[in-house]
Amino acid sequence: MTINEALNWRYATKRMTGKVVPENIVNKIMESIHLSPSSFGFQPYEIFVISNQDMKSKIQLLAFNQAQIVESSHLLVFVAWDRYTEERIDKAVDFQVSQKGLSEADAITQKNIAKNFFREKSDDFHFSHAVKQSSIALGIALLTAALEAVDASPMEGFNPVALDEFLDLKVKGLRSTTLLALGYRDEENDWNYKLNKARKPLDELMTKII
Amino acid sequence: MTINEALNWRYATKRMTGKVVPENIVNKIMESIHLSPSSFGFQPYEIFVISNQDMKSKIQLLAFNQAQIVESSHLLVFVAWDRYTEERIDKAVDFQVSQKGLSEADAITQKNIAKNFFREKSDDFHFSHAVKQSSIALGIALLTAALEAVDASPMEGFNPVALDEFLDLKVKGLRSTTLLALGYRDEENDWNYKLNKARKPLDELMTKII
Repeated sequence: MTINEALNWRYATKRMTGKVVPENIVNKIMESIHLSPSSFGFQPYEIFVISNQDMKSKIQLLAFNQAQIVESSHLLVFVAWDRYTEERIDKAVDFQVSQKGLSEADAITQKNIAKNFFREKSDDFHFSHAVKQSSIALGIALLTAALEAVDASPMEGFNPVALDEFLDLKVKGLRSTTLLALGYRDEENDWNYKLNKARKPLDELMTKII
Repeated sequence: MTINEALNWRYATKRMTGKVVPENIVNKIMESIHLSPSSFGFQPYEIFVISNQDMKSKIQLLAFNQAQIVESSHLLVFVAWDRYTEERIDKAVDFQVSQKGLSEADAITQKNIAKNFFREKSDDFHFSHAVKQSSIALGIALLTAALEAVDASPMEGFNPVALDEFLDLKVKGLRSTTLLALGYRDEENDWNYKLNKARKPLDELMTKII
């Protein structure tokens, strides 16, 4: 499939067959997430990759009982940093500096830039900033899945407070942001499969300045 | 290039050559953005696609003078809704219902669900929610560009208040969220080209629950 064909092929799958996505393809999707860029290169998020059926059933109860959660092969839970703490910034910069072969002076500069950027910002700002980065990775995961002919259904419809508690996120300084069901569409039973894709006209989306 | 090769090939390009990205490839990237999914299907964002050199120069002044802005072929400015107003929800749902051939009753139900979700939420919540959706599209654009061998450099380093004023966004209920420079790397002069890509270990990014 071309990119365009893949994006037209994909849709918000509401019913899946339960068929398992091969491990090597799940790994490709995870590798795409791993390689996604983020502000300051901090990758301020984590992903729970859930194939355990009991866990999926419990999460389904916190997510308006959506069928694709338990009918998925793997349920990905995207969780983002609740704050860019000084400890997290130090750790992330030290790691980058070691990987890139930069100097201690570079590390100090980069830590200061990041700390100054986030200092005195609200909790909402911190979390939203981390969610923004995780959503870049989500987009890259969605296109990767489509190109691999795997259905991927992103969901914001869940109780985040209850899910954070269920996954014990607070103590880790994390908050849930998006679910992503990976699997295979059940064409016969999915009402959404039969509907046209609706996208607003391209000229309402983009303004060219030549 | 495979997806993995493309994501390893790409990097945050800091210097570009000014070479023009062919129109058909820019269109492919825009078509990917156009097909990106969003919560409720509302596509709560717009993209300015700027090839005008004078405009780029003026934006560069609001963005820490970053070279890739004026050395890019096209500068994309992602702007997101500042609020999910009732008017916007009505228009978006009416459009979807017309495209999908749904009923007037479906339209009323969907409008109510969306309006109830956003009612009494803060301005920050509205904008962050829209930014989240635009970042999914940004991720899809980044992977599309890489697969087309086009460099794409996302930037959050700019003065959003000044840029919103420059692009006259407030009156349209929009706020700037991310810049994306599209073009071709200047390997010789780009210090960032020579550095290794740094990504935290995969086992710190993902937790498998089997």
